[in-house]
Amino acid sequence: MSDVKKVVLAYSGGLDTSVIVKWLQETYDCEVVTFTADIGQGEEVEPARAKAQALGVKEIYIEDLREEFVRDYVYPMFRANTIYEGEYLLGTSIARPLIAKRLIEIANETGADAISHGATGKGNDQVRFELGAYALKPGVKVIAPWREWDLTSREKLMAYCEKHEIPVDFSKSKKKSPYSMDANLLHISYEGGILEDPWAEAEEDMWRWSVSPEAAPDEPTYVELTFEQGDIVAIDGEALKPHEVLTKLNKLGGDNGIGRLDIVENRYVGMKSRGCYETPGGTIMLRAHRAIESITLDRESAHLKDSLMPKYAEVIYNGYWWSPERKVLQAAIDETQKHVSGVVRMKLYKGSATVVGRKSEQSLFDESIATFEDDAGAYDQKDAEGFIKLNALRLRIAASKGRNAS
Amino acid sequence: MSDVKKVVLAYSGGLDTSVIVKWLQETYDCEVVTFTADIGQGEEVEPARAKAQALGVKEIYIEDLREEFVRDYVYPMFRANTIYEGEYLLGTSIARPLIAKRLIEIANETGADAISHGATGKGNDQVRFELGAYALKPGVKVIAPWREWDLTSREKLMAYCEKHEIPVDFSKSKKKSPYSMDANLLHISYEGGILEDPWAEAEEDMWRWSVSPEAAPDEPTYVELTFEQGDIVAIDGEALKPHEVLTKLNKLGGDNGIGRLDIVENRYVGMKSRGCYETPGGTIMLRAHRAIESITLDRESAHLKDSLMPKYAEVIYNGYWWSPERKVLQAAIDETQKHVSGVVRMKLYKGSATVVGRKSEQSLFDESIATFEDDAGAYDQKDAEGFIKLNALRLRIAASKGRNAS
Amino acid sequence: MSDVKKVVLAYSGGLDTSVIVKWLQETYDCEVVTFTADIGQGEEVEPARAKAQALGVKEIYIEDLREEFVRDYVYPMFRANTIYEGEYLLGTSIARPLIAKRLIEIANETGADAISHGATGKGNDQVRFELGAYALKPGVKVIAPWREWDLTSREKLMAYCEKHEIPVDFSKSKKKSPYSMDANLLHISYEGGILEDPWAEAEEDMWRWSVSPEAAPDEPTYVELTFEQGDIVAIDGEALKPHEVLTKLNKLGGDNGIGRLDIVENRYVGMKSRGCYETPGGTIMLRAHRAIESITLDRESAHLKDSLMPKYAEVIYNGYWWSPERKVLQAAIDETQKHVSGVVRMKLYKGSATVVGRKSEQSLFDESIATFEDDAGAYDQKDAEGFIKLNALRLRIAASKGRNAS
Amino acid sequence: MSDVKKVVLAYSGGLDTSVIVKWLQETYDCEVVTFTADIGQGEEVEPARAKAQALGVKEIYIEDLREEFVRDYVYPMFRANTIYEGEYLLGTSIARPLIAKRLIEIANETGADAISHGATGKGNDQVRFELGAYALKPGVKVIAPWREWDLTSREKLMAYCEKHEIPVDFSKSKKKSPYSMDANLLHISYEGGILEDPWAEAEEDMWRWSVSPEAAPDEPTYVELTFEQGDIVAIDGEALKPHEVLTKLNKLGGDNGIGRLDIVENRYVGMKSRGCYETPGGTIMLRAHRAIESITLDRESAHLKDSLMPKYAEVIYNGYWWSPERKVLQAAIDETQKHVSGVVRMKLYKGSATVVGRKSEQSLFDESIATFEDDAGAYDQKDAEGFIKLNALRLRIAASKGRNAS
Repeated sequence: MSDVKKVVLAYSGGLDTSVIVKWLQETYDCEVVTFTADIGQGEEVEPARAKAQALGVKEIYIEDLREEFVRDYVYPMFRANTIYEGEYLLGTSIARPLIAKRLIEIANETGADAISHGATGKGNDQVRFELGAYALKPGVKVIAPWREWDLTSREKLMAYCEKHEIPVDFSKSKKKSPYSMDANLLHISYEGGILEDPWAEAEEDMWRWSVSPEAAPDEPTYVELTFEQGDIVAIDGEALKPHEVLTKLNKLGGDNGIGRLDIVENRYVGMKSRGCYETPGGTIMLRAHRAIESITLDRESAHLKDSLMPKYAEVIYNGYWWSPERKVLQAAIDETQKHVSGVVRMKLYKGSATVVGRKSEQSLFDESIATFEDDAGAYDQKDAEGFIKLNALRLRIAASKGRNAS
Repeated sequence: MSDVKKVVLAYSGGLDTSVIVKWLQETYDCEVVTFTADIGQGEEVEPARAKAQALGVKEIYIEDLREEFVRDYVYPMFRANTIYEGEYLLGTSIARPLIAKRLIEIANETGADAISHGATGKGNDQVRFELGAYALKPGVKVIAPWREWDLTSREKLMAYCEKHEIPVDFSKSKKKSPYSMDANLLHISYEGGILEDPWAEAEEDMWRWSVSPEAAPDEPTYVELTFEQGDIVAIDGEALKPHEVLTKLNKLGGDNGIGRLDIVENRYVGMKSRGCYETPGGTIMLRAHRAIESITLDRESAHLKDSLMPKYAEVIYNGYWWSPERKVLQAAIDETQKHVSGVVRMKLYKGSATVVGRKSEQSLFDESIATFEDDAGAYDQKDAEGFIKLNALRLRIAASKGRNAS
Repeated sequence: MSDVKKVVLAYSGGLDTSVIVKWLQETYDCEVVTFTADIGQGEEVEPARAKAQALGVKEIYIEDLREEFVRDYVYPMFRANTIYEGEYLLGTSIARPLIAKRLIEIANETGADAISHGATGKGNDQVRFELGAYALKPGVKVIAPWREWDLTSREKLMAYCEKHEIPVDFSKSKKKSPYSMDANLLHISYEGGILEDPWAEAEEDMWRWSVSPEAAPDEPTYVELTFEQGDIVAIDGEALKPHEVLTKLNKLGGDNGIGRLDIVENRYVGMKSRGCYETPGGTIMLRAHRAIESITLDRESAHLKDSLMPKYAEVIYNGYWWSPERKVLQAAIDETQKHVSGVVRMKLYKGSATVVGRKSEQSLFDESIATFEDDAGAYDQKDAEGFIKLNALRLRIAASKGRNAS
Repeated sequence: MSDVKKVVLAYSGGLDTSVIVKWLQETYDCEVVTFTADIGQGEEVEPARAKAQALGVKEIYIEDLREEFVRDYVYPMFRANTIYEGEYLLGTSIARPLIAKRLIEIANETGADAISHGATGKGNDQVRFELGAYALKPGVKVIAPWREWDLTSREKLMAYCEKHEIPVDFSKSKKKSPYSMDANLLHISYEGGILEDPWAEAEEDMWRWSVSPEAAPDEPTYVELTFEQGDIVAIDGEALKPHEVLTKLNKLGGDNGIGRLDIVENRYVGMKSRGCYETPGGTIMLRAHRAIESITLDRESAHLKDSLMPKYAEVIYNGYWWSPERKVLQAAIDETQKHVSGVVRMKLYKGSATVVGRKSEQSLFDESIATFEDDAGAYDQKDAEGFIKLNALRLRIAASKGRNAS
C-alpha cells in the first residue's frame, strides 16, 4: 500500500472523515490534503481548518462553492425539469460532480496521486465521486476507506479515535440525530433509523429545513420569479445570483412547509432504499420552470425534452455527470431554453407551491387563436376535418381489414 | 347532404346539443339517435330522455358507464403514472374513447351510418371522438356541426332556438358559469373567460369540486389504499369497485383541497390553451401508485415505464386510444404491473397528498441489505469497487485520450 | 382568388410545372416567379430559362445549390446515421427543406406573397414544402395546384396545353419512363407503374444510376474515406467539397451496383406506398460513418444517438426540418461528432459496401486492454466479479421473492 | 473454498473446459457435472461424453437444444429487428441465456450449489452467463476460473494438462485457428489475432461459413419465406421447424456469400473490441422480416418498435435476457406481431440479400389509395390542406414571434 504518496480527501470536519485522515496517514503512510467546501449545507466550514491542522494536515483547502454549485450544476439540471423516479429532485446526486471535480483539480495542483472520500460501499455517492474522478483523471488512485477498513461498527471507530487521540468533540456535531443526513443548497436528506421500515411514518422532529404544513402560516405567500433562458434571475423583481435565488427560495419554501418528500428509491448499486428529503426551493423552481416553459416552449421540443428527461435523471443519479452522454443530453436541453424567459407568479401555502400566472414577451400563447370567442379568422375550423381525416387514414385502412376491434 | 340516413349524436341534454339535434334533422333530413352517458359528470342524465323526446327523437340511449369508464380507461391509464406535459392528468382525454366506442356500437345496433358530436373545431375533443369512430368503423360518416354551421355566436344560436321552438329552459343548466366546463369521474375542467389571460389567477369561486386549501380542515386525514396488480381495490380495508374507489377519493380529496391545477397546455391542433382542472381522486391515486411501485417494481422496469410514459400520455391526449400503438404500450405497461400489489398510507392535508408509508408482500425492499447497520454479509461492499471500475473504464480510456476535460 | 399578387413556383422546366405556370397566371391573375435549382438531379437546369420566358415569366431564378445541399442538409443528416423505417436513406425528404427555404427567400426578395409547387395531395412532398414555408414565413399563401385544379388526368392536362399553347416538346423529357421519378445528389426514386403491386419485382431497366450487381466488375474496388467531425472530407487522400464527395461516391457506388433499395414505406399522410431507390454514395457513407464512429465514439453517446435516430428520421421524413425539435436533435447529434475523425477503408463489390478497416488518432479502441494476450495489468479481470454481482443484485432480490422464473 | 459441494460446468469438450473440470475438482474438492449442448455450433457433442468420463465426471448432460434455441430465443429477438450498434445481429449474446437456464435447471436437478463456465473476465459472456444464473437461482455460487486461476498463459495451461494427465488430443479441435471463435445456429464469430488491429482486413481463409461474394455463384438464387405472426414457418412453401428454417437459410446465405460482418463493438465491461461475424441466415431473416412488416404493420407501431429496439438490443447484448425489463419489451414487441404474416420473396446474390416482393392477406397496403392513377375518391386530396395547416400552426405562431429563422 506504499504506492500512494499524497491523497486529497473530501473532508467534512466531522468525526468520520477525521478518522479517515488518520487512517490514511497510517495505512498508506502518505500525506493527506483536506478539501472542505461550503455548498450550502448550513454548517460553518472554517472550523475544519483547525481540526485538519490538529491531525497533522499541511495542505488544507476550504472553499465557498455555493455560487458555482447552483450556477453550473443545479441550474443546468433544472432546465430539464429533472426528476428521478417521478419524485426525487436529485439533491444529493447533483452536488457530487462538483466535489469530484475539485478533488481532482486539487490533486493536480498539489501533485497528489490519489483521492479519498467518506462514502460507504452501499450507496450511490461512492459511485458518483469515483466515476467523476476517473473521468477527469484516468490514472488517479481512489481510496474508499469504508470499503477497505475493519472499522465497521461505532465501537471500533470510537476505539480507533481513542487510540489515535482524535479529539472526542469532533463528534459533537449539531447533527445529533438517529438519521444519516446530507445537506447542500438544494436539499437535506435523511436515511436510516426508523426510516428503514418503509411503512413507518417519519417523525415530525426529523425535518430540519421546513415547518410542517400544519404549522405554516394561515395566509398564502405570493412570489414572482423571473426567468432568463430557463434560469431564475430575479425574485419579485430583485436580481439575484443563482445561489442567492436558491437561498431565498429555500427560506420561502421552508416557511410555508414546502418540499418534503418521503420515498423509496432504486439505488444504482442494486438495492431499494428509503429516504426523506426537504427541497423547498427546488420544489418551487421545478413548478415555476414548467410554467414558464408552458407559454414559451414549442410543443414538440417540450415533448422531446420530457422523453429525454428520465434518461438524463438516471445519468445524473448514477454519477455520470462527467460523461459524454450527459453533455449530449445537455446540448439538447440547453438548445430548448433559448426563449424560456418571462415571469411566473406562484402561491405558496401550507405545503403547496401553486402556479397562478405566467407571462412572457416570448410567449407562444396566442389568445386570438385560442379564444372561445370569435377569432376573426385566425383559425379556420374547417382545417380540422382534413387534419383528422389524414391522421385517421391508417386507422381506417386497418379497420377495413378487420383490425382495431375494441 | 342527403346521403346520411341516421346519425347517433353524443347528447348531453344541454342547449347546444339540443340545437344540434334539430340542426341535424333539418340539415341532413335524417333520423337522430341520442346517446347520453353518466360517466360521473355529477348531473342527472335521465332528464335528457324527455328533452330528446320533445325534439322528436325516437331512439334514445341513456346509460350509466361509470364502472366501465374507471375500470377500462382510467385504471389502465393510471398504471402508467400518466401525466401530460408534466402536469395534466388527462381527465378529459380519457373519457372520449369510451364515448366514441359507444357511439359506434349504437350506430351498429341502430343501423346508423353517421355519428355526431358537439365539440368545436379548435379543440382536442373533436379529434378524440373522430379518431375513435374511424378506428372502430372506418366507413362511418362524422358530422361536426361546429365546423359546418353558421351558428357561430350566442345570438345566432338563440335565434335558431326561437325559430325552432327549442325550449328555453334547456339552457337553464346548473352550469351558470363564465367558463367552458367539462366533468367526469376523473376531473372537472374550466376554460375560457378570464382564463384566456395566462397571467390572471383563477377566481376562487370558479372551483366546484374542492374546497380551497385554506378552507380545508385543520386536521390531516389519513387513508390506506390497497392495490392489486396496479389498481386500487380497497380503501381503508373496504373492497370497492373502480368507480366507487374514484368517487370516494374524489370526496376525500375535494374535502382536503387536493387536486387543483392551473396550466397552459399544448393542444394537438397546434395552439396553446389555458385550462384549470380539479382532479382530487386522481391526484391521490397517482401519488399512491408511484409509492406502491416504489417497493414492488424492479428498477429497470420502472425506468423503462417512465421513459415510455410521455409517449403514452401523448397518444391518449391526441386521441389515439383506439390505435395499435396504444395497445402496444399498454401491453408493456400491464406486463410491469403483475406484482404491483400492497398497501399505501397517505396523509391528506390542505391541498397536499403525501405518502407516509407503503408495505407489500411483493416488496423488493430488502431491509437486511439496505440497512446502515451490520448486514451480516448480505452485501459485500468490496463488490462496489469492481462495479465502479468497469463502469468507469470507457470514461478512463476517453480521458487518457484527452477527452472529458471539465 | 385575386388576393395573390405574386407567386414563387418551384419550377423544374418539365411539362407539369409549365402547366402550373400558366394555370397560376390564369387562375390567380398574378405574376409568377420561377425557381429552378440544380441539386444534382442530373439534368441541365439552364434550359428552364427559355421555357419560363416563353411562358411570360419575368423573374427567373436558376441556381446551383449542390454544395449547399450536401453540406447543410445531407451531411448533418448522415451524422445521425439516419434511416427511416430501417431501410430508407431519406433521399427525397432531405432535399425539400432547401427548396422551401429558397422559395421563401426569393418570395422575400421579389415581394411575392405566395409560393407554389407541383407536388400532389397524396404524397409527403407537399407537406415538406409547406411546413418549411410556413415555418419560415408564417403569413405566406401556399398554392398547391394538384389539390385545387381539375386537370386530374393526362388527357385534361394535354388539352390544357393545347388550349394555352404550351409547347409540346416540354414533355419530351429524358424521363420517358412508366415511373414517377425524383432525383438529387443523394438519390433517385421510382414510384408508380408496376411498383404499385408490392409483389412485383422491379424491372432491371428501371434502374438508372447503378449497374446491376450481376453486371458490376468482377474485381472489388477499395476506397479510403477520411472523416472530420463526422463528415467525409477526402476520398483516397484527396480533399473534396461535400458535393464532390457525394458525386464521386455515387460514381463508385453506381459502378459497383451499390445502393439499390425496394421498399414499402409509411407516408406521413397515412398510406403505405412502394418505392424503389438508388442511393449509391449514401449507402457507402452510412456504413463508413458507422465504422468511424465505432472506434471514436463513446459507447453511451453512441447508444443515445441510436435511440434518438428513429425520431430524427421521422422528423425529417415528415417535413419538420425547419422545426425547433429538429434543431434540438441536431444539437445533440452534433455534440457527439466532435471526435468522429479518422479514416475508413471500404471494399465495394457487386452490390456490397463492406468495411474492412478503420483508424483514427481519436480512436478509443485500446488494444492493450482488448487483447486476448497478456495485457500487463491494463485490465483487472477480478473487477468483473463485483461488476456482475452488483448488476445482478436487483435480479437476485427479485428471484429470492419468487420472481424471474423462466 | 470448501463450501462448494457440486458444480455444473458448461462443458464444450475442448481443452480449456477440460482443464476447468480438473481444476474445479482439485481446487474446490467438489463434484463436477458437465453440460454440453448442441446449439448448432457445427461440431459433434457426443464425443464430450467420453472425455468427461475420462476426467472422472459421473453426471454428464448432453443435449440437442437447437429447436428450443431458435424457437424461444432467436425468433423472439428477430421479431424486434434487433441490431446492436447498427450492425451486429447478436449471435453470441442470444445463445447465452439458454445455456444459463439449463445450467441452473441441471443444478436444481442434481442438487448442485454452483455453476461454472469457461468465459474470460474481459468479455460479455461471463456477464450473460452469470446474470442469467443469478436471476434464476439467486443463491447460486458462480465459479469463473479465468478470473481466479493463475493459468494465464498457454504454457501454464499445457503444463497443467501434463501434470494432470489431461489427454493431449483434447486440444486437437477442428478449430485450428489463430482466432478465438464461437458458433451456434445463428452465427460464427472471430476475435483476436490480426483482428486486434482494426485497420487490418480479415484474411479470406478466416471465414468458415460463407464463400466470399467473389466466389459465390454468378446466378442469383430466389427464395420465398412465409411468416406467421413475425416468425418464418416455411421456405419456398415447405413448412419447417424454427431450427430447420435457420439451418436452411444458413446454407442458402453461406452459398451466396451473405452475412459477413466486420465491426468494432462496445462491450458491456467498458472496452471496444473488434469482431468478425458470419450470420448468413440471420441476415436474410432480418431483411425479410422488415419487408413483411412493411406491408402488415401499422406505421406508429412500427416506429414505436424502432424506437424501442436499441434498448432491447442493449438489454440482450448486456446479458439481461432473464430480466423483467426484457419481458416488458418482449410483451410490447409480441403485441405488434399479431398480423405480421405473409410471404416475402428475396434474391440472394454475391453477398446481398435483396427483397424483391412481399404479399399478405393481412396487408395494409391499399393500392386503390396509393395509386398515381385515378383513385375513384378513395382519398380526398383536399384533406391534405387542413392536415398541413394544423400541423404547421405551432410553427407559424413561433415564426410570427420571430423564431425559426433559418
